[in-house]
Formats: sequence, structure tokens, C-alpha cells
Amino acid sequence: MLSVTCIAPVNIAVIKYWGKRDEDLILPLNDSVSATLSTDHLCTKTTISTCQSFTENKIVLNGKEESFDNPRLLRCLIEIKKRAREANKCKPELLDWKVHVTTENNFPTAAGLASSASGYACLVYTLACLYGIENEQISSIARQGSGSACRSLYSGFVQWQKGDRPDGTDSVAVQLASHDFWPEMRIIILVVNDARKKTSSTGGMSTSVKTSKLLKYRAEKCVPEHTKNLIEALHKKDFETFGRITMQESNQFHAVCLDTYPPCVYMNDISFAVVNMVHQFNALKKEIRVAYTFDAGPNACLYLLEKDVQEVLGVVNQVFPNDKLGDPEYIKGIAVDYSALPKADEQFTASGNNLLKYIINTKVGEGPKRIN
Amino acid sequence: MLSVTCIAPVNIAVIKYWGKRDEDLILPLNDSVSATLSTDHLCTKTTISTCQSFTENKIVLNGKEESFDNPRLLRCLIEIKKRAREANKCKPELLDWKVHVTTENNFPTAAGLASSASGYACLVYTLACLYGIENEQISSIARQGSGSACRSLYSGFVQWQKGDRPDGTDSVAVQLASHDFWPEMRIIILVVNDARKKTSSTGGMSTSVKTSKLLKYRAEKCVPEHTKNLIEALHKKDFETFGRITMQESNQFHAVCLDTYPPCVYMNDISFAVVNMVHQFNALKKEIRVAYTFDAGPNACLYLLEKDVQEVLGVVNQVFPNDKLGDPEYIKGIAVDYSALPKADEQFTASGNNLLKYIINTKVGEGPKRIN
Repeated sequence: MLSVTCIAPVNIAVIKYWGKRDEDLILPLNDSVSATLSTDHLCTKTTISTCQSFTENKIVLNGKEESFDNPRLLRCLIEIKKRAREANKCKPELLDWKVHVTTENNFPTAAGLASSASGYACLVYTLACLYGIENEQISSIARQGSGSACRSLYSGFVQWQKGDRPDGTDSVAVQLASHDFWPEMRIIILVVNDARKKTSSTGGMSTSVKTSKLLKYRAEKCVPEHTKNLIEALHKKDFETFGRITMQESNQFHAVCLDTYPPCVYMNDISFAVVNMVHQFNALKKEIRVAYTFDAGPNACLYLLEKDVQEVLGVVNQVFPNDKLGDPEYIKGIAVDYSALPKADEQFTASGNNLLKYIINTKVGEGPKRIN
Repeated sequence: MLSVTCIAPVNIAVIKYWGKRDEDLILPLNDSVSATLSTDHLCTKTTISTCQSFTENKIVLNGKEESFDNPRLLRCLIEIKKRAREANKCKPELLDWKVHVTTENNFPTAAGLASSASGYACLVYTLACLYGIENEQISSIARQGSGSACRSLYSGFVQWQKGDRPDGTDSVAVQLASHDFWPEMRIIILVVNDARKKTSSTGGMSTSVKTSKLLKYRAEKCVPEHTKNLIEALHKKDFETFGRITMQESNQFHAVCLDTYPPCVYMNDISFAVVNMVHQFNALKKEIRVAYTFDAGPNACLYLLEKDVQEVLGVVNQVFPNDKLGDPEYIKGIAVDYSALPKADEQFTASGNNLLKYIINTKVGEGPKRIN
């Protein structure tokens, strides 16, 4: 029996992926850019074992056995084995054995944080370790599990290039900057309370492509310009431009969701209270000090620099007062001296009590790695 | 002393006006289409007196004296007097006298229903009566008070044609169908509770034009197609198409608002609960029976046919239960037998208690008229 355990990070896009040109191969309509988050605070851990005696493939997700009969999961396994046969780095009989997959997140699934990216990245990375495949070859396989998973294969800042080839071989992730390129960068995730039923992002995306007249224009005209300018800002460590484009991208992505028929609505009143708080804070500072971005859910991810973390958390605490403030489970991640949070300007009035479930204070981090 | 009193209706757009190509003349980037609502339930009433002895122009809005030193108000008065001089239908000295304007709405201003359209339509119509000007000439003057006011000058369904001339003389409203063309059409306004500060539509629109990359594409490519198809559907009394385009237009308008930087957010969680309820109802009926549209605020306007009013109100009552249901002030307008509201399908679960302030049940109506 052979057994490999790996971890893989979550990533948060600043240039958003929304819309496939090929549903089957998961080829996107536009490039996207993300930061990989530290696995210290958010990651998926996957163990894959293979043994001649296993009679069937099995997968256990967060302690619960799930069906292996999932086309995306099967495709990842088939594609990896195909590469492994070509690479010829492992014993050929290994590829005939069944696998047992155990995978879990170190963050609550209920949080509504995208776990499919870290999940598929970890699955594909672990399989690659098991069968001795080079990491450069697995990006397009992870992509076929969940589009954004390809971005979770690299540390730092990552671009998923949409590619042009119909077979998708050039639709891969590349690293733009390593995790220590901009060491001051911090990410604070505000996990909000939400009662609404979630529209799946796969379903929403597909309906958007079919019905939104603005989506195609965004993908063709707006995203290339945003991407070019954001990468330039990243290389120059120009937070003002980086932050502005991040917010514009998030808003435009949600605009396209709203232009979908029927509309996909992922942000809620609490999300918009965060948007308002961020613009108020930046207006007060007369420059962009913090930027929000929202994925297909109501949680806010704030990008900011280390120097502003305490002050921004002071504002968050004033706008979103929470009974759990002293509780170490309320602000997770990099330690924060919550007793020293500064009082914010009086223009920041409370939106309501206990509107946030918890806060994760994290930073840009490394890619997947083998831990056994 | 001469004194004229007139009333003018509110209108609710189904093809949305959002974006000016000329801020000064109030020339829009695209056509818009609206229904004029019955003045029985929603209207502005304006009395204008003029007298040789008046020493200054005065305006009293809903019982409160306001400054006459408002450029839009002054422009309407100056332009009307200019036309009156050309038309030569009144005694010339009349045009030298000052005016006293008293104007009030028969609906609460706090409701967040656009009162500037009915307000400026009524002002300009009343001035036209006072000075004996033909109604055909006043659309472009009302437009200079508040863009959508030009649509409130006609009964039934009205198109504001954007026009092409730089001086705006062809940017006028025209009637598409009279108020009795589609007599079954009903409009139900759900006035929602909202704590948020309102972004003014003038300010929001101007920021959208400057910052939204999607706005120009919408105005040039999407709206002309929506307008053409909606007018066709109106003439054929094709509710399915009329309703679908109405919802798509509303969503695309709010998408452009969200694509604005900083974003303009007018809808709230209650608005989106209405959106969801409407799509659920139409899905159940396997056809579009009711369509929502939202202006620059959280209130929903539902377009539907008379035959579906009781059933839709039953659904509204189930999704938005309200302690004031028996109160005649809760469902205003056309009388509804609230004790006979049918029970809705169990899939319609309550969003929360008392989320609506009140409901106005109304229909398409006539244009402005003189009442003294």
C-alpha cells in the first residue's frame, strides 16, 4: 500500500473568473488573477492511498463518504493516470489499483468559503505525488476539476491564462509573484451571517453565459484591461491601483450576476454594508487603504497592508459590533490584539449587532505541499 | 390674479433611463418607456397663482416653503415664459408677474417613490395652462426639470425618445398606447422598509456615466433592442415578453449601478426577496404572470394582469406577512378583498414579519389635467 498526504491552499480572486467558453473542459471566457492564502489558516488536507486489495475507489469528504461517481472527480483521476502512464515514473501496476481519498478542510464548510478550488487542487496535487508526475503538468487537470483550482497550485499571486486552444492545453495557471514578493499584503475575511439559499456558482455561471448581454462585453473588453493594469500595479506594489481594480472587478462580476436571467444574487445587505464601510474609510484616508472583493457568496475578503490591519479591524468592530469579540474563535488566523483595537471615527456607525460569524486574518501564502 | 390648479401622474419605467449625454439639457443616453399610473392613487397637485402685486416667486412643497433659487425650477419657468411670448396666447404683462407655486403629493414623500417626475410634469403643465401654451410643446421643458417628468405628461404607455439633436428639441416623450389600450394591466407597488441612506439618482447617474464601463454598452447595444421588443410586445399585448424584458431591464439597470465606482446600491435584501418570489411564482405557473421593476430605491413595482391580482397578493402576504393586513392603510388604491386572499403554495415561505410598509394596488391611468 502506498499513501500520500498533501495540503493545498485557498485562493481569492481579484480579477474574477465568471463564464466558461467550454463547459466540458472548463475553459474560461477570460483570464483571472488571485492571491493564494496561507495554508496556516485555510487549507484542504488530502490523503490518498492505493493498494492492490482495494476493490473500489472511495472518497470521504469532511468525514462523510461521498459518491465517487462524480464526472469531474473521475476526470481528474483518469487524466492524472493518463499522464502517469506517459511519464512512466511509477510502477505500471499502481495505475490499475483503486484509490481511497480522504479530504478535509481546516475551515468550516458552512462558512461559504469556496472549498472546491483548494479541494481539487489538493486532490490533483496528491495524485501527482502518488504517481510521480511533475507539477508543471497538472494545472490543466486541476482546472477540469474546478476552474479556479488551477490557481491554488501556486504560491503568491497567480494568473489563470484563459488560453486559445480548443483542447485547453494552454488554459493554465502561472505564477505572477511569489508569496514573499509583497510581504506586507494581508487578507481579512469577514464571514457574514446569511439565511439565504446559495445559488451554486457552476449553475449561476452557466445561466450568466446564456442570458447576460453584459457578460461577453465584460470578458472581451473590460477584463483584459483590468488584468493588464492589475498585474502592472502588482509588480509596482502600487496598492492604490491594485485596490481600485480589485473593487471594480468584484462589483462588475456581481453586476453581471445581476444582469443574468433570473438574476444571481450573492451579496446581501451585510456585504453592501462592508462595501460602504470600505469606501468611507478610503475617503477618510484620501487614498485606497483597503479593498473588498466578494466571490459567489456574501462573505467579504479585504485586501490591505499590514500597517493598516489594526485600524481597519477597529473600524470593522465599530460597524459590526460583536459579542464574541474577546473569543479567540471570533478573530482567527494571525494573532490580533483585540483589546488594543483603536476607536474609529464617529462617522462609522454600527450596522447591527453580531452580523459577522467570525473573521479570518491571514496573508498571502505558499502553494500545495506534501506533508508525509 | 390668475390661479390654475392641475394634477399630474407618477410614471414607472419598464425601459430604464440611466445616464445623460448632456447634464445641462438633461438629454439621455437611451430611450426609455414607462406606464403612467392612475392619478386616483398617486399624483402631484399643483396650484400656480400669478398677480401683479406679487413681489417674488415662491414655492411651497408639501406644506414647506422651499427656495425658488433652484436652477431646474428657474429653467422651467424661463422656458415656459419664452414659449408663451412666442405663442402670444396670454396677455403680455402676465409674463412679467411673479408666481406662487403650491405643490403636494397625495402619497407620502417618505415612501421613496419618485416624486420629481410627477412634480415637474405638474409644474410645467400648470404653467402651460396659466399661459395658454399647447401641450405638445412642453415635453422638452418638463424634461429639463427632471428627465423622466416628460413621460408623466401623457396617459397610458409612453416612450421618451432620446433624440439626436444637440439642442434637445427632439428629446421628447410620445404616447405609445392610451390608458385604456390594455385595461387589464395592473401595477402593485410594494413599499419596503429601509434604513439605508438613499443615494440621489442624479448623483448616482452622473457617477455611472463617468465610471461604469458597462453603461455605454447597455445604452448603445442593449436598450435599443429591449425597447423595440418591448414596444412590439405592448402592441401585441404579449405579457410574457413584456414581463421578461421589464425584469431584464430592471436588473440590467441595477447591474450598471453596481458597476459604478463607488457602486450605487438601491435594492436591498427585501427587494431581492421580492425578485425571488416573482421568479418562483412564474416558475410555478410555467409562464410569466408577474414582473418586477425597481427604480433608484428598494421599492418593488409589480406589473401583472387583473386576473392574477388576488393570487399574487396571496403570495405577497405569505412571503411578507404583515400585522397591518386588515388595515385599509396597508393595501391602498383599488379595493382588495384581503379577507379572501388565497393561500399560496407552501414553497412560498415567509421572509420575515412586517418587511413591507404598505402596498399600493393601482393601474395604468390618464395624463395631467386641469382641475379648476
